[in-house]
Parts: sequence; C-alpha cells; structure tokens
Amino acid sequence: MNRKEMGKTKLTAAAITYEHIKTCKQSGARLGRVHTPHGTFETPMFMPVGTMATVKTMSPEDLEKMDAQIILSNTYHLWLRPGEDIIEEAGGLHKFMNWNKPILTDSGGFQVFSLSDLRKITEEGVHFRHHLSGEKLFLTPEKAMQIQHSLGSDIMMAFDECPPYPADFSYMKDSVERTSRWAERCLTEHHQSGKNAKQGLFGIIQGGEHEELRKQSAKDLTSLDFPGYAVGGLSVGEPKDVMNRVLEFTTPLMPADKPRYLMGVGSPDSLIDGAIRGIDMFDCVLPTRIARNGTCMTSAGRLVVRNAKYARDFRPLDENCDCHVCRTYSRAYIRHLIKCEETFGFRLTTYHNLYFLLTLMKQVRQAIMDDRLLDFREQFFEAYGFNKENAKNF
Amino acid sequence: MNRKEMGKTKLTAAAITYEHIKTCKQSGARLGRVHTPHGTFETPMFMPVGTMATVKTMSPEDLEKMDAQIILSNTYHLWLRPGEDIIEEAGGLHKFMNWNKPILTDSGGFQVFSLSDLRKITEEGVHFRHHLSGEKLFLTPEKAMQIQHSLGSDIMMAFDECPPYPADFSYMKDSVERTSRWAERCLTEHHQSGKNAKQGLFGIIQGGEHEELRKQSAKDLTSLDFPGYAVGGLSVGEPKDVMNRVLEFTTPLMPADKPRYLMGVGSPDSLIDGAIRGIDMFDCVLPTRIARNGTCMTSAGRLVVRNAKYARDFRPLDENCDCHVCRTYSRAYIRHLIKCEETFGFRLTTYHNLYFLLTLMKQVRQAIMDDRLLDFREQFFEAYGFNKENAKNF
Repeated sequence: MNRKEMGKTKLTAAAITYEHIKTCKQSGARLGRVHTPHGTFETPMFMPVGTMATVKTMSPEDLEKMDAQIILSNTYHLWLRPGEDIIEEAGGLHKFMNWNKPILTDSGGFQVFSLSDLRKITEEGVHFRHHLSGEKLFLTPEKAMQIQHSLGSDIMMAFDECPPYPADFSYMKDSVERTSRWAERCLTEHHQSGKNAKQGLFGIIQGGEHEELRKQSAKDLTSLDFPGYAVGGLSVGEPKDVMNRVLEFTTPLMPADKPRYLMGVGSPDSLIDGAIRGIDMFDCVLPTRIARNGTCMTSAGRLVVRNAKYARDFRPLDENCDCHVCRTYSRAYIRHLIKCEETFGFRLTTYHNLYFLLTLMKQVRQAIMDDRLLDFREQFFEAYGFNKENAKNF
Repeated sequence: MNRKEMGKTKLTAAAITYEHIKTCKQSGARLGRVHTPHGTFETPMFMPVGTMATVKTMSPEDLEKMDAQIILSNTYHLWLRPGEDIIEEAGGLHKFMNWNKPILTDSGGFQVFSLSDLRKITEEGVHFRHHLSGEKLFLTPEKAMQIQHSLGSDIMMAFDECPPYPADFSYMKDSVERTSRWAERCLTEHHQSGKNAKQGLFGIIQGGEHEELRKQSAKDLTSLDFPGYAVGGLSVGEPKDVMNRVLEFTTPLMPADKPRYLMGVGSPDSLIDGAIRGIDMFDCVLPTRIARNGTCMTSAGRLVVRNAKYARDFRPLDENCDCHVCRTYSRAYIRHLIKCEETFGFRLTTYHNLYFLLTLMKQVRQAIMDDRLLDFREQFFEAYGFNKENAKNF
C-alpha cells in the first residue's frame, strides 16, 4: 500500500466514528456510541443476525420495538441468494429489507470456511463449492468488497481466513500473514472502486490462541488505519477461558479511539465478559437459533419451553421480563405452538431472546455508567446459573 | 327434544343475534351485523382460520391491523393438541391465544371425515384414528359440545357428517337424518350441561346437491331454533355452478333473522357469489394456505410471487393495495424470502392475502349499501380474470 492510498484511508475512515463516553472504574469496560451513515448505536451492543436480509421470523418493526440499533447480514448468503446485483438494483440492503438503521455485513470468509465444501485456499482467494447447489465459486478480497459495496452496508468487514480451533502455530502464522495481505487488498479495492465511500471497512485480527500471532495481526492491521477492528477466530470451539485470555492480550493492542467487535459471540456470559475486556460490539445466531428450537434465555437461566413440564404452565417465559411476549403469552401457549411447529411460536421465542440480550446490553451499559459492572456480572451469573459447576455453555 | 328443552333453547339463543341493516336492491345480498359475547362483526364477513389457536404466521396484532373481526379455530385440532382441558385451564381460547374478538369453532366433524383414517360411523358417533399418532378416538355430538364448551368460543358448530361430493341420494338421506338427530343431541348437551350458556350454537344444513334433502335438513334444523345456521357440504369438490344452485334453493329455507354461514369457502368469486345468494359468513384456509406457497391474491388476479419473473420486480404485490406489505415491500424481496423459505416471507404473503379478502368483503358491504353488488361483481370478475375461459378455480 502506498502513501496515496493511506491518505484515502484516513479520508473515508470518518464514515464510522467511535465516541467514547466513559470507562467503568470497576471493570475497565467501555461505554460509547458508534456513528454510521444510517445513524448511531450505543455500545456495548449486541447485533441480531439477519443472514438472508431478514432476522429469522422477525419484522423490522419487531426489531425496532425491541430497540435493536444495528443488525448484521451475511455477504456469502446474499451473494448466492438473491445475488448482490438484485439488492443493488433495489437501492441497497437497507431499502430491500426495509431496515433504515445501521447494518454490518461480514465478508463471507467465515461461511466459505464453515459451510462450503472442497475449498482450496490460494493467495488470490478461495475456490469452493456452493453449500446448496454444488456450483464452483471463487471469492477474493476484491470480490468480497464489491459484493459489500452492492449491499451498501454501513460497516463492511475485510475478507479473512478463520481457521478452526485448535490450529497449529505454523499454519496459523501463514494464515495471519495472508489475512493481513488480504486486508490490504480489501482496503485498496474499497478506495480505488470509488463506490460507496461512506461505507466503513473494519479489519479483523486473527491469530487463534497464540499471543505472538495476535500481536502480529494487530500490528499489521492497525498500520492500515481501518475505522474499526474486530477480533475474529474466537467462539470456534475453544474453551471459554481461552477466549477470555485471548481477549485480555488482544484488546489492548486495538486502538482506543475505534470500535472493537468480537465476532460470533452471543452467550450472555460471553457478552458480559467481552465487555469487561473492552469489546464494544457482538453478534451471534445463538439467541435466534435456540429460539427456533424452543429454548429461551431468562433471568433465571435457560428455559426449554418445549418440555412437557410447561404444558400447563401459564406463567410468562421470564417472570422478570417486560417484553411484549412475556406480558402477553404463557409458556403453555408458546409450548403448544412450538410442538405444532407453528411459526408464530418461533416468532415469540425469537422476539423474547433478542429482547433479553438487548436488555442485558442495556443493563451492562448502565452498570458501566455506574462503575459496577463486576458486581452486575456476579449477580447475573448467579441468577442465570453460570456459577454452577454444570452450567451449560450459553 | 321436549318442550322444556325447547324453552331453554330460546333463552340462550340471544347470545348471538343478527342485526339486519339492509338488502341490496340489485342483488338481494344482505348487509348486517352479528353480535356475540366478544363483540360485533359486520356481515358479509370472511373469517381467517386459526386452526391451532393461531392464524398461521400471524400475530393477533397483525389480525387487528388488517381489521379481522372474527376468526375460526378448529375443535378437532385443539382437542388433540394441546387438549381442550389445557385451554380451559388457561381461561379459554380467547385468553390462551390473546384474541379478544369473536371466535367461531367448528365441531370437528369435517376433520374427522377429511383427515382421519379408518373411521366408522355409528348412531352414537364416529370412531377413528388420530391423523398423526394413529391413536383410536371416538367423537360424539356430546363430546364435540363439551370440547367447544372448554374452548369457550362465541359461536359453536353442531357435530355433523360432511359427505364427499358426489354422494348418492340414499346415502345422503341417511346422513342428513343422522346429522339432524346429532344436532338435536348437540343442543340438548349444550343446554343440559349448564356450561357457558353465553356461547351460541349454530346448526348445519347438509344434503349435498339434492334439493329435497336440503329442504328436509333445513326443516329439521330450523325446528330446533338455533341462533344461526350454516350451509355445510359445499366446496368439497363440486363444480362452482352446483354450489351456486344449491345456495339458491337453500338460503331461502334459512331464517331471515339469523346469520347464515357458508362453510369452507374463501375464493374471491365464491365470496361475492355467496353474498349475492344471501350468505353472511365465510371461512377458508385458501388465502393463508396459498400464501405459504408463494401465491397472492391481487386486484389483477392471482400472482405467483415465487416465479422467476419477479426476481427483479420492485413493485408491490398489488399495485392497487394499500396494505402494510404493499406499501413497504417489493415482489423481489418477498420472492427472495420465499425462495429461501424464510418465514417472514410467508408472513408477508399471508398478511396481504387476508387483507385482500377482508378488503373485498368491505367493498362487498359498501356495494350492498349502494345497491350495486352485481355491478361490483362484474367489475371485480373482469379485473381478476374470473371471466376468462381458463380462469383458475381459486
């Protein structure tokens, strides 16, 4: 990357800005706001996942009602269906799906590695087969940018490799270096295309559990001056303490004046523990996916509402929740719907789970404001059951 | 039935009352209102079907927004899942599903004959096997009443036999006579139980295409003084002109001061043609079922939005529709969702189709008020394509 390009980087970085409000004196967690072309969201924030240009079972009105401030959508999926050209023709993803608040799109990298078959990684990009049709496809850093330009998301992600856990040091070192070179190509493509300069591009720090590699990745990427940075390659099968340890040595390497995003993490404990380690943004399919299996997050821990014991339980999913679902419907009704595979049941559990996590983030922000996030963590973990020995991993 | 029981009948018939507003001078169609324990609905009216205590993909708020004034739910399905005892314990169906407007429940008769296996009809009732579990079950007129008492619907239906089309005269005559005896047992059970006297019980006139049998059925049932009457056994495979002819000789046999309900009919042409023949109420799964297959009702006829030709069509489903879906989403987006089997897509097409039929009924009511329902029929049929030779039968 030459100096001229670097100059362009700085110019457009302003599309996404981070406003720091305060740091929790007890925990070190950050309270802030991220400004984007489609408005501002508060941090720490959880982003519901709308893979196919819809957060499964939810309407945009549902999302607004629960105070979702930013959603994530998946480049890989939209590229394949309906095709980014159709979304561009519709006027971009916001207009296509009727969501006028911020959208973050991933780069497709994670899905290429997790969903596709027969992939082959080269310096140029990744050859792979469509996970449904078997069609041969090729995704490169440049192509990932072009697709995201067509989608018109507020925050784009650089195309990276996300190796599974555990990956050995020498493989991971090669991968990190390639990811850095790809990040540079993403930035070049973004600036040279002249398209959608308002979109902000985040870099992704990889390196698995290896501190040395995380340092190298962070150094490479921060030298490129992205307007925000993500920690990638976590929540891929490693134990929770590994995730926390990696965050402890990685977030201090990330610029304090830019948003920090922990990719693919959405269990209540990890959201709190991530915020404590300086993370501002999270996303995960967990709350929506388990909802469609009849599992709910509640202030007293998880509740598998499809279980027979709820057949005559006329209490709300969560007796301490003030969401529309908990104010209106009983466990017995929701269980009945889910047993009958009625989509309205999935809609109710999805709404509740997203509301629960968004409310949790609100509580986390308030606890940061009050300098008591460690106390809040203790109380929350106790009530949810995370302190129990047999605590489930979400 | 003895005189004492007849007296009771008249007493409780007041739970459901029909208020006649006017008759269309051009067509003979009736404009009115039906008053029930959970409020009033205008007639002619279409009732969305909520088989499993949910109108598939819709929330009660969605239904209110589209001005649904009464919904139908299925006794057979709710008896089997979750069980009427659970719904009674919840405080009744209205409370269970959070719908505070009128509900009509069918008797289970139609489902026993259309869904179950190995059924055996006796004078006492029908032995059959659960359509999912294979469990042996027995449904009688008394049991059908007991279940509907537990559900607490505003309008209950008598347990009847609904023979398929065509059925020969002698079989149909036996069936009609049995249905009359069953209707009497329903009324007796309803009054002797002392439960839910506010619920109104409708009788069902059967007799297939045979005028003599319809006359006999109507005579038997009107002698029992139900607060409303249905025409059953239509829309079971007979040609449309047979349905219209049967209605022409049947509705004049029905009391003018009580609501008249044509069961299982929901195609736009049949709604108009039924109203012209003096029908006040209709129900059908058609609009919701075809919606989940990606087919929409529009002012220009049916539109199969899943078809490839809509991939880049950014117009609304119906350019003349002012529903939320048509004001907000494109054919291209809805097609994308449906191709991806995203439930939000089914929610959008379902909402639109129900809105379309409810709006059609509003237009029918206005046309009756203006004494121009035959003119309206002509215009609507022309625009929808029902006048074409190859018009599809929905």
